[in-house]
Formats: sequence, C-alpha cells, structure tokens
Amino acid sequence: MSATTSLNDRLAAARSASRTLAVMSPGDKVDALEAIARALTSRSADIMAENAEDVQAARRAKAPTAMVDRLLLDDSRLDAMAQGIRAVAALPDPVGIVDAGWRVTNGLEILETRVPLGVIGVIYEGRPNVTTDAAALALKSGNAIVLRGSSIAARSNRILGDVVMAALAGAGVPDGAITMLGTDRDEMLEMIRAEGQVDLVIPRGGEDLKAYLIEHARVPVIYAASGNCHVYVDSSADLNDALAIIVNAKCQRPGVCNAAESLLVHRDVAAEFLPRAAEALIAQGVELRVSDEARAAIGPSAADLPAATDDDFAREFLSLILSVGVVGSVDEAIDHINRFGSGHSESIITASLEAAQAFQLGVDAACVYVNASTRFTDGGEFGMGAEIGISTQKLHARGPIGLSHLTTVKYLITGTGQIR
Amino acid sequence: MSATTSLNDRLAAARSASRTLAVMSPGDKVDALEAIARALTSRSADIMAENAEDVQAARRAKAPTAMVDRLLLDDSRLDAMAQGIRAVAALPDPVGIVDAGWRVTNGLEILETRVPLGVIGVIYEGRPNVTTDAAALALKSGNAIVLRGSSIAARSNRILGDVVMAALAGAGVPDGAITMLGTDRDEMLEMIRAEGQVDLVIPRGGEDLKAYLIEHARVPVIYAASGNCHVYVDSSADLNDALAIIVNAKCQRPGVCNAAESLLVHRDVAAEFLPRAAEALIAQGVELRVSDEARAAIGPSAADLPAATDDDFAREFLSLILSVGVVGSVDEAIDHINRFGSGHSESIITASLEAAQAFQLGVDAACVYVNASTRFTDGGEFGMGAEIGISTQKLHARGPIGLSHLTTVKYLITGTGQIR
Repeated sequence: MSATTSLNDRLAAARSASRTLAVMSPGDKVDALEAIARALTSRSADIMAENAEDVQAARRAKAPTAMVDRLLLDDSRLDAMAQGIRAVAALPDPVGIVDAGWRVTNGLEILETRVPLGVIGVIYEGRPNVTTDAAALALKSGNAIVLRGSSIAARSNRILGDVVMAALAGAGVPDGAITMLGTDRDEMLEMIRAEGQVDLVIPRGGEDLKAYLIEHARVPVIYAASGNCHVYVDSSADLNDALAIIVNAKCQRPGVCNAAESLLVHRDVAAEFLPRAAEALIAQGVELRVSDEARAAIGPSAADLPAATDDDFAREFLSLILSVGVVGSVDEAIDHINRFGSGHSESIITASLEAAQAFQLGVDAACVYVNASTRFTDGGEFGMGAEIGISTQKLHARGPIGLSHLTTVKYLITGTGQIR
Repeated sequence: MSATTSLNDRLAAARSASRTLAVMSPGDKVDALEAIARALTSRSADIMAENAEDVQAARRAKAPTAMVDRLLLDDSRLDAMAQGIRAVAALPDPVGIVDAGWRVTNGLEILETRVPLGVIGVIYEGRPNVTTDAAALALKSGNAIVLRGSSIAARSNRILGDVVMAALAGAGVPDGAITMLGTDRDEMLEMIRAEGQVDLVIPRGGEDLKAYLIEHARVPVIYAASGNCHVYVDSSADLNDALAIIVNAKCQRPGVCNAAESLLVHRDVAAEFLPRAAEALIAQGVELRVSDEARAAIGPSAADLPAATDDDFAREFLSLILSVGVVGSVDEAIDHINRFGSGHSESIITASLEAAQAFQLGVDAACVYVNASTRFTDGGEFGMGAEIGISTQKLHARGPIGLSHLTTVKYLITGTGQIR
C-alpha cells in the first residue's frame, strides 16, 4: 500500500491483513519466510546501494562511529539477516497452541488457545536488521506489523520493507501485512494513539522515547527499556568467580541493557575484593564511581576516583562506567537494588543458600541470577529463539519478549445447547 | 495510614507493604483472609449502620432503584461477602508456581516463576462487595491494593476498608496493604498517572471511564469493559436450541457484559426462525431493532418495529433491547461481528462442523462459543474461582481476570560462575 495513503487507511489494511495472517497455515508461513530470506540475497546489490547512501549521509552529518557501525550493512551482515529469518521460520509455530483445556460441570468444553494479537507496532533505532527481524517474528506469529525506524536508516529500511513486501506478495500474503511509517514524529504519534487499530506497540529505545510514549500513547505498550543491572558480591562469595562475573557483566558488551552498571560488595569482603576488582576493571578501561566506603576499601589508588551520587547509582551508563557501593547485608543489597534498579537483571555471587534464596525472593526484577553474569538475559541465551526486546514491565511480558508474547489467548467453548 | 497523608506517601507505603505481602507464606495469607471474613460478621452492625446512611442519601437523591439495590447490604449479602472471602482463601495460592523450568547448554538453570505484580488499583462503581472481593484477591495474590469506589457507596466502602485493615493489622499484615482513595477525581487521576508506583489499574465501569483512562493513564491498565455480544443462528442450527439460547443470552440478566445485544440469522432459516424468536423475545419484554430483511422475515407483526441502524448494531444496550440482522453466510456473520463486536463473547448455533470451525477461527473475541449461551463468560462458570472483571483487551489477560492474572513472572537463574 502506497505511503501516500492516509495512515488511518493503512492501519485498516493492516487489520484486514491480520485476519488473513491469523488463519495462515504454519507451512505457508514458513514458505513466506523462506521467500523473504531468498529475496534478501537476490536483491543484495539494491539493498547495499541504498544502505551506502544512508551511511554516507550519516558520515557527512558526523554521526558517532558506533552509530554508523550499527547502520552499516555488508555481505556478511545481510547473510546473517537472512539466516535470522530462517531461524525464526524454524521455531515452533506459536499460533493454535492449546495452553489448557477442561470441561466444566454443565458439560461445556473450554480450550484456552493461543491466537495472534493482530496489529503490532515496533519503534526502533538505527539498526536495519530490526526491520527484517521484526517482520519475520510478526509473520511467524500471524500478526500484521507497523514499523517505524530511525531517520538515519530511512533508505535502508525502505528498501528492506519493499523487499519483504514483494516476497510476501509472491507468497500470497495480503497487502497490509507490513506497513512502513515515515520517520517524522507525526505518523508515530498517530500510530500510538490509534486505539482499536493497533493492539500493541513495542518501543526499542531509550528513556526519552519511553517518556514520550507514557505521555502520549493510547494503545497498549510494552517497554523494552533500560537496564540498571547490579552484581552483588556476598560475604560468602567465591571471589574469583565474582571477579570474572563483574568484569564480564560490565565489559563484554557495555552498550547493551543487560550489562552491569553497579557493583555492590558486602562489607566483610570489601577490603579483600574491591582492590582486585578495581584493578581488573580499570585495566579494562572502566571508570569507577565509588561510595566513600568503597573508596576506603580500594585503598590509596582510589583517592582520585569520582564519588558516586544517588544519580550515579540510578543511572544506566551504557558505557565503561560503573558505580560501586558497599553494603552490610544481603537485605541491604536487596533494598538498594529495589530502590535504584530498573527491574531488569540482578545477580548475587554467594556460596550461601540462605543468601541466594533471600536475594531471588526479595529482588523485584525480571531476571534474578545466582552466581552468573547478568549478560545472559537474552531470548537466544534463554533458548527461546529470537526476541524483539527485553521487557522491564510486569504486564504480559517480563524479560525477553519472544514469539509467544506476540500472541494472546482466545477461549474456544463448545456446548450442546447449554444455557444459564 | 491516614487518608490525610499525601497520596504519594500512601502509594510509597503500598509499595513497601507489597514487598512484605510478596513473601508472605500461603498459610499466613489464608489466616489473614479468615480474619477478614470473621471481622465482617463481628462488625456487621457498624457496617450496616454506615450502609444505611449511604442508602438513605441515595434514595434522597432519587438514585435509580437498581442502583440503590446494588448498594444495599443486609445480613445475607454480608454473609455472602464473608463466604466469598473464604472461597478466595480456599483457592490454590498463585504465588511461587513454576510455569516452566529448563537448563541451557552452559548449565544455567532457569525457572519461570509466578510472583505478585506489586501494587494494583481497582476503580469500581456502587457495589460495596467489590471492596472486600478485590481486597481478598489482592491479598491472596500477594499484592497491595488501592481501591477507588463510587461516591454513592462512600460510607460503606470506608467502613469495609477499615474492617479489612484492622483484620489485616491483627494478622501481621503491614499498613499500606490496602489504600482507600477519595471519591473525587483528583486522587484517581493521581493514581492512574503514578508511573512506577502502581503496576496495574483495573477499571470496572462503562465506556466513559474507559475513555477517561485511555486519555489520562500513564500506568498499565486492563479494561474490564463493555460486551457487545452476538448470537449467530447458522442455516444448520437446531432452532429449538437457538431459541432457548438467544432468550437466555438476552433475558436472563440483561444488565451484564456477557448478555447478548445482537441476533444474526442465516438467510436460509430467517423466515422459519425469526417469527418464533421475535414472539418469544417480545413476550419477555424485549424491544427488537431490526434490519429491513429481518423485518420482512418476521412478517406483518414487525411492521412497527424500529429500524436497526449501524449505531444500534455497535451498541451495548445493557437492557432489554436487541438488534436483529440477517446474513448470507457464516463468513458474513464473522465480518459483521468483527466490525461491530467488542471482542467479548460471541456464539454460533450450528450443526455444521465446518461452520463451527470457521466461526471459532475467524471471530476475534475473548470467548467464542459453539451451541451455548454467551452468559457463561465468567470466572466462576469457567471454574477459575473469583474474578475481578472480564478483559476485552488482548494484553496480559483476555476473558475472565482471575488470580493468576494478578501475578507476573520472574526468571530465577542459578549458575556456577557462568560468564559470556
């Protein structure tokens, strides 16, 4: 459907397409996904040409190197996108699964069955692969999708959308299964206020986008939002494990939401652990922001480290910065995390069963780890397959948002003339 | 906590109480619920005295009889409220249930576990029993609750809240487990905008309240909203069953959301079925609003019946009014229902397996019936126990909102030092 058609009409076409997608057979969906994967390869020259223009424009505009890198497509990335689509195709079909079934006293038979949500909007930043990943997840789960990418990737997203649409049309999927929005805020605002036309919006972006949606959205939203993740080193911790875990959780990929942003250490092991941890982290280029007690525990080398404020403890740095504090007990660690954390991923390093249980029971977060890095919060690592984000809200999806979260339930009730 | 404390402070107390409630043992929660049930009986004289003042004021203000009836408490109703609390106490505890557990390649063990949402707000109309029902469901599921009842029941709700709070305090449940809001819109508005302080709001009310929340809410909301429910009589239907079902679905309790508001009949049986249906429904006092084709099928007696407009087909009458139309096929019935319905409960009466399957697959609603009355959409009838409303939205809860929907998941991950 042409981008000059009004958004209202395009959303109506999306709804109409969603009715067809909802009843597509699993095999037809796999065929359509395979057609998309093939088209990515056969049209790679066109895709790369458009992407090159986005990249050139981004460089001219002096976009940060990391941003340009996320934008850039090459043969191996395009191949990975095609493989990603085939991986989604290979997942079990989430539609039609019967979660539960039972018979009630009057003889009615009730089946609680998984069905697609309908029309899903995704708002995302500069990675073009999200366009095809999200389209594949939506198709596999029988939903129409509305995509609103970043202006920095406008040409790349447009051609990827065209390639997906052409492949879908060839596979008999109706027009409207995928809708690409403009990159200004007008159409995004219209989408997030299109109550009854859009069943779910998933924003993949920072706190600014979240605040904007909280203020303006009328449709249901799942926030794939920030992670202020903690590693707490208990008094009974194996300090070698603790060291490996904090270095991994902070440094392995600092720009992602499941990276650690804060280290808490039990007072009893602070003087032993913190000097080693500080040395290892600083060697990796980490800037430490420390509480007074943490500074004292690290020793003379910590004299010049910046002081950690409450703001620092509340912040998701998404870079090689770490706030460091000392606590007197596991309960104090839990209270600190429940106060400052964002409910994403939190880890305790401990040898004590009692401390592990208290931490997992008391910390209010999507994922609560014992003796492991927070970096494992990920649909792939969890064995769920591809994900569309990590939810830090409590409704519908908490933690990795996988295929099953793109469905809802429908109760199918069969009787023989029952009345009340 | 005193009602003169700022709402912000009271919500902070609710959050704090929710941390304690989340880790209460199942047995302690049963004891606390039993204490509430006993207190309702032991303090019945005080409760009845306050309720009498509400009733008197409502009568003075010439409130409709049905509204006064919903407000009125007597010994048997108070007893039913106490029994309702004991029924909730007897349900399986929904907290700590492990929905799934698995081990991934690197040896991490993952448990997907049910935990309370935290702080739940309920906005409701003039039935005082909602105060104790909602408090019981919240306590059983380990959540703190914020209650905002109607001004018509202000005195009744206040004393019921006091009775519940006193019983909870005696059972060691912290202050803040239950918060009663004032009946003006100020505190309600503050609650629905208290992002991060309130995890879910459930409004039990009409379309006006829903529109208000869509406009103003910043916290997650599940709409327990309207039901524009249809009965579709297919060409192969057993017409005796069809007659019994439409009369039951329309007349047994017309003021509730799962009552039928619209009758669709296949063209092939319209001339045979509609005259009988019209006679039976009119005998029950039902006003029919008919399409031209339905009027012709009913015959001369239908000459004076009002014409059904699109507005009528879209409306939830909640009274003895029924829109009536004729369709040419099951597909046409599905399209009509998806266009005009509210996604609540829809029923096909048919002897055809093909028609039944097409209807259950194609109709986009929470509950899709074959050969049964729409009136069964209810937590009790479904065997789920008490419910807090019927959701017509697709996120988190669709259909009856039971105890399990007042929980979310937490992934508990246990390792032995794993890093990525």
